[in-house]
Amino acid sequence: MKAMPERTRIPGRHFLQIPGPSNVPDEVLRAIDQPTIDHRGPEFAELTLGLLEKIKWVFQTESKVVVYPSSGTGAWEAALSNLVDPGGKVLAYETGHFANLWRGVAERMGLEVNWIESDWRSGIDAGKIEEALSEDKDHEIKAVMAVHGETSNGVNSNILKVREAIDSAGHPALLLVDVVSSLATADYRHDAWGVDVAIAASQKGLMLPPGLGFNAISQKAILVSKECQSNRSYWDWRKILESNETGYYPYTPASNMLFGLDKALDLLQQEGFSNLFSRHNQLAEATRAAVDHWGLENVCTNKDEFAASTTAIYLPEEFNADKLRQGILEKYNLSLGTGLGKFKGRVFRVGHLGDINALTVLGTLAGVEMGLVDFGVPIKKGGVEAAMAKIQA
Amino acid sequence: MKAMPERTRIPGRHFLQIPGPSNVPDEVLRAIDQPTIDHRGPEFAELTLGLLEKIKWVFQTESKVVVYPSSGTGAWEAALSNLVDPGGKVLAYETGHFANLWRGVAERMGLEVNWIESDWRSGIDAGKIEEALSEDKDHEIKAVMAVHGETSNGVNSNILKVREAIDSAGHPALLLVDVVSSLATADYRHDAWGVDVAIAASQKGLMLPPGLGFNAISQKAILVSKECQSNRSYWDWRKILESNETGYYPYTPASNMLFGLDKALDLLQQEGFSNLFSRHNQLAEATRAAVDHWGLENVCTNKDEFAASTTAIYLPEEFNADKLRQGILEKYNLSLGTGLGKFKGRVFRVGHLGDINALTVLGTLAGVEMGLVDFGVPIKKGGVEAAMAKIQA
Amino acid sequence: MKAMPERTRIPGRHFLQIPGPSNVPDEVLRAIDQPTIDHRGPEFAELTLGLLEKIKWVFQTESKVVVYPSSGTGAWEAALSNLVDPGGKVLAYETGHFANLWRGVAERMGLEVNWIESDWRSGIDAGKIEEALSEDKDHEIKAVMAVHGETSNGVNSNILKVREAIDSAGHPALLLVDVVSSLATADYRHDAWGVDVAIAASQKGLMLPPGLGFNAISQKAILVSKECQSNRSYWDWRKILESNETGYYPYTPASNMLFGLDKALDLLQQEGFSNLFSRHNQLAEATRAAVDHWGLENVCTNKDEFAASTTAIYLPEEFNADKLRQGILEKYNLSLGTGLGKFKGRVFRVGHLGDINALTVLGTLAGVEMGLVDFGVPIKKGGVEAAMAKIQA
Amino acid sequence: MKAMPERTRIPGRHFLQIPGPSNVPDEVLRAIDQPTIDHRGPEFAELTLGLLEKIKWVFQTESKVVVYPSSGTGAWEAALSNLVDPGGKVLAYETGHFANLWRGVAERMGLEVNWIESDWRSGIDAGKIEEALSEDKDHEIKAVMAVHGETSNGVNSNILKVREAIDSAGHPALLLVDVVSSLATADYRHDAWGVDVAIAASQKGLMLPPGLGFNAISQKAILVSKECQSNRSYWDWRKILESNETGYYPYTPASNMLFGLDKALDLLQQEGFSNLFSRHNQLAEATRAAVDHWGLENVCTNKDEFAASTTAIYLPEEFNADKLRQGILEKYNLSLGTGLGKFKGRVFRVGHLGDINALTVLGTLAGVEMGLVDFGVPIKKGGVEAAMAKIQA
Repeated sequence: MKAMPERTRIPGRHFLQIPGPSNVPDEVLRAIDQPTIDHRGPEFAELTLGLLEKIKWVFQTESKVVVYPSSGTGAWEAALSNLVDPGGKVLAYETGHFANLWRGVAERMGLEVNWIESDWRSGIDAGKIEEALSEDKDHEIKAVMAVHGETSNGVNSNILKVREAIDSAGHPALLLVDVVSSLATADYRHDAWGVDVAIAASQKGLMLPPGLGFNAISQKAILVSKECQSNRSYWDWRKILESNETGYYPYTPASNMLFGLDKALDLLQQEGFSNLFSRHNQLAEATRAAVDHWGLENVCTNKDEFAASTTAIYLPEEFNADKLRQGILEKYNLSLGTGLGKFKGRVFRVGHLGDINALTVLGTLAGVEMGLVDFGVPIKKGGVEAAMAKIQA
Repeated sequence: MKAMPERTRIPGRHFLQIPGPSNVPDEVLRAIDQPTIDHRGPEFAELTLGLLEKIKWVFQTESKVVVYPSSGTGAWEAALSNLVDPGGKVLAYETGHFANLWRGVAERMGLEVNWIESDWRSGIDAGKIEEALSEDKDHEIKAVMAVHGETSNGVNSNILKVREAIDSAGHPALLLVDVVSSLATADYRHDAWGVDVAIAASQKGLMLPPGLGFNAISQKAILVSKECQSNRSYWDWRKILESNETGYYPYTPASNMLFGLDKALDLLQQEGFSNLFSRHNQLAEATRAAVDHWGLENVCTNKDEFAASTTAIYLPEEFNADKLRQGILEKYNLSLGTGLGKFKGRVFRVGHLGDINALTVLGTLAGVEMGLVDFGVPIKKGGVEAAMAKIQA
Repeated sequence: MKAMPERTRIPGRHFLQIPGPSNVPDEVLRAIDQPTIDHRGPEFAELTLGLLEKIKWVFQTESKVVVYPSSGTGAWEAALSNLVDPGGKVLAYETGHFANLWRGVAERMGLEVNWIESDWRSGIDAGKIEEALSEDKDHEIKAVMAVHGETSNGVNSNILKVREAIDSAGHPALLLVDVVSSLATADYRHDAWGVDVAIAASQKGLMLPPGLGFNAISQKAILVSKECQSNRSYWDWRKILESNETGYYPYTPASNMLFGLDKALDLLQQEGFSNLFSRHNQLAEATRAAVDHWGLENVCTNKDEFAASTTAIYLPEEFNADKLRQGILEKYNLSLGTGLGKFKGRVFRVGHLGDINALTVLGTLAGVEMGLVDFGVPIKKGGVEAAMAKIQA
Repeated sequence: MKAMPERTRIPGRHFLQIPGPSNVPDEVLRAIDQPTIDHRGPEFAELTLGLLEKIKWVFQTESKVVVYPSSGTGAWEAALSNLVDPGGKVLAYETGHFANLWRGVAERMGLEVNWIESDWRSGIDAGKIEEALSEDKDHEIKAVMAVHGETSNGVNSNILKVREAIDSAGHPALLLVDVVSSLATADYRHDAWGVDVAIAASQKGLMLPPGLGFNAISQKAILVSKECQSNRSYWDWRKILESNETGYYPYTPASNMLFGLDKALDLLQQEGFSNLFSRHNQLAEATRAAVDHWGLENVCTNKDEFAASTTAIYLPEEFNADKLRQGILEKYNLSLGTGLGKFKGRVFRVGHLGDINALTVLGTLAGVEMGLVDFGVPIKKGGVEAAMAKIQA
């Protein structure tokens, strides 16, 4: 067993500007760094009851939120496994790479996916949802899978329109929405928009390390889940919701992550939705101002659909985006997001979500601009100043 | 949204002497309390490659270990879902409450469980395993589910004998073993004992907070999993093993918990198996010496099967064990394990596993003895001195 | 420059039962582990103004408390340097080793110390103070130096009687009291007892790491200090009190330790004086019960003067107390206090102060008892049970 | 006792860009956040012996370094009190505010200070030192007090020239140098430059929170100190050096800060002098490029004397620098240094020292530029781009 070499430390704080995991506030890390407690004791129940109440706020729901020790991909599986019978049919929309991954989950679970293709550069065309549902006369489609914030391309879809499309089609399908990178970075209204399950993860707007997955669940979804014939155990909402009633879990939950979640929710409430969303919007605008100034192309083509959390940027074809990212990491201690799926090598992504401020983003954009120059990409310098102008606007 | 009252702090460090979660070393908590990093960057790959190599040591295997963001119950489901086709048959042995819970998982997954009943007071009778397998002429049983350290009663089963029973029956069933509370507290030899999947969790002998589940997997199991027809995504070993080759995961892994795992493995290796197991044995012996002295009854009736991690103790029938535990918690800041399943209210459990030493256990036993006296349980005082004598023996 | 070998880790939490530094609560360590802030910014002023108000509570004073980045020995020097002119005369009482060290400080500062000798086994005989002051017809003695809790022998002196002795003598000398190990472990009433300066340090009852020294100062002392002719800069109260008015310091203060102090004061207030002192008393009583049971001799001979923080214990002459301590440290991961000054090798000390509870102390006493047995000291076993009886009384 | 309001949290990591305290690396904060240990035990001795050896490296000395629980102002007093007899004479040079403060310390200690005035905009004119010493025919001047890095104006003096001036004058005065903000940010060669005492503090280039003061001491200074007639106790090197021989202290040292120091020295050694100094130089150059571009005036007028740690910048007279700083803090979560002494309200300072990198400084400069614009200061925009050009040069 050879010892691993100690990781070499680059001076200064790392700029973690991928679109999640995002930077975890020191207060949250310190909350996680507390001694583990008895998950069957009164202190734990008090913690759980409090945070299960608090977490509804962030989803804007009065219904229930289930917290899993899992990744976000687990929470995708959870939503489907509680609602769709074996071999059942679902409708999914190709907003980008993560929609695609979610489709893969559904297929591996043995579901039949009705897939609406798209170009990865714009959000959901709700008309196509309505059309597909209208064609499904026998209501075989049990659920619509929609991605709110598509992390691979920085495109945010209008979920309310998806809801309206389902309603216009007079279709009983449940609405499942991936809010992994949109939650707590952009307005998301679980109840008002009539979403049945929202799928989230800890490492984005919630400002936690990865390790927790979430399902916010409508009352309708809870009813459907009670009748659902799928084989499931770990993801089964029923036992969890029952145990949660008294503040416990039917298994040993990830206590220390829950300590962090409790603290992170406090910080988010302290900031408030209005500040939270306007901050994210401003930082996203500043980023786009730099991209435009550089003369680079934003993957998202529709200005109404720019994500507050992420900007995905094309490099001119003759440059490899991953080599750019590697150079920037090594020289400037800045992590940027890779191009995913068909964007591999062509696109890089700037994450501007979570616990950051204007100076973090401006430092990030400075790193990107210098990296582009180092790499020989023909850009117009001055992107940081353009971003500053937007911050000051 | 009302603010939760701040938890009232009882002075001094809490004695967390449940049979898991165990006490997390400060070094491990501090490792977890580091800034999250890019799960697709080179630093992460270096971490993963190192720890996936290191973790084999703790299972005594040369094969593969898969790490999940999950509870231990998730790792149970993972093992079954990778190996048993839908509706398949498994053989399981009722060592106690956790064996029972695992059976429940299998059943909810739609598997048919051949269940060998037992009295929860002793370990696996390998002869019964051999008998059941011998009767299965058509080899319909795909896997044997055995619990190594049964946390509900402090009984450790002889896994090598189970292996031999399978072999004697000439049966091809895979051997799946729950080592959740035995791993890193008692000798467990994955390869030497011919185990196919070992199921573990982070919050016991591994000295971590809960939040990670493990499957150590034999080469035979890997081959079987490749052909397995079950619908699975999150638990699927194939994608994970493939991504792990280069140090990554097919989803965003629980980075900060992995930082802790890396550190915890270092601490365990530093102590070494010999010290680790003799320490746990000594602390378990000391605990039993106190129990015997008090005149209370150990749930485990077979002295060759005492668990190194846990001692489960009957209270005389007229006393409620949970009220005893509550009193001890409030008065002495000591958490003890509750009686599970049919032991509810009748049994309490002392955890003596993980990052503890003789004085921790003696303080714990002092708390138990005082609590018993406070509660009016007729015991012979002097249990702590009896335990001290065992420590000094 | 050779690398230091990594410290070998003994499993389980270390039992730090010296009479200070005491165990630091996790909450306090985590408070210290926050990013340092601008010591001239508004956040710092808010912190300082708050804690300088809060800290008065712990001294039971309405006057002022000065906090130094220093050891307790520095705070001794501070008190003298602000009040006694060069070459001035002070009266000091030999309660034990720390009284002796403080005398050394006064002498090195060029002061003339009128020294009342004693046997290190009992507290201050206030009559001797009165006598000495009465003989000082010209009031040359400027200050009386008294140790409240003498950490070297576990003797607590009656400070109110010292005050009364000074008053009976009709002497204007200031009363300076070392409360380093008594503060927040036993009742100390700065204003009610008419003390002029109380000298304290962070690493005892205040439950902090070492690094902060304190002077609680009466209005009379403040007035005297304004006229004092000593050459002083670092310790000078005047500039500090002036800067403190607006929440600042005339130098860069130890910010992170102040974060910890703020948190520690919150925890102490949450417990409250009544609980705090009765807890310390009970743990001290339990310790003495064990010592008595073992048949060993307590250094403190006067039962009205037992310190709540510390018990100092003689070993039979044929045994070396430091070898005993070394053995206990290596075998049981327990640190005990060494014999200081003339007690070197003859005495060991048990600290029972700060953030501890009954089980911590009982584990400690178990370690001591086992160590004594290992070392061949003829004792009567059963000390831990005797201590438990006291806890339950 | 009213509860303090919880501090309102501004999102994102605070940019602490004052010229000290500097940003503390997470690894160092986590090292400080370990349980306190017995300061008289073997583990402590091992720590101390290791770090007292390691710390010589950072001063480039083979002699001794004394570490105090104190501020840097305490370390000033320490140096003087160990070397200059009561009423003795010293020579000091007015490099700026901190030189002035140090003079104040000397005067309050009763020393006679021969003060060489200067304009706070350039470093030491060694010729004036030589002149003053040459006039001191009777060698009454015992020490020369020189500030290497003057934190109030960003001016670094040439200490080797001061040494040569003393030698040219054939004067036996000791050379005392304040390296508080230059140590570990710019080359400082204690032995090679013939310095007798270097005064340092923890919160600057050493990347620690404030709370430790340092004296690096030449053999000559050690000899002088043995004969020095000053009254001193806390600062006395003799007892400390003696205790340090075996790894201990004559008082309870600030253990947790020493844990941090040990770690910080490891990080600094890992980076190495060459990288450390070139990084600081580059970041300082980038800052000056922005200042020049904005058309603002650098306080330091001599390009050979620019400090690597700090840039002090004049605002046009009609603007108040503290109001600018306040606005920048509130709007951009960035702390800048205030103007000290006669610079009050006229000057602000950017700290670019310690654990930072290019993106931190560029984010900082963006904050400054935006703040200047917000405040209506007539500047030429584009300072960040000018700084970026310097980084990439």
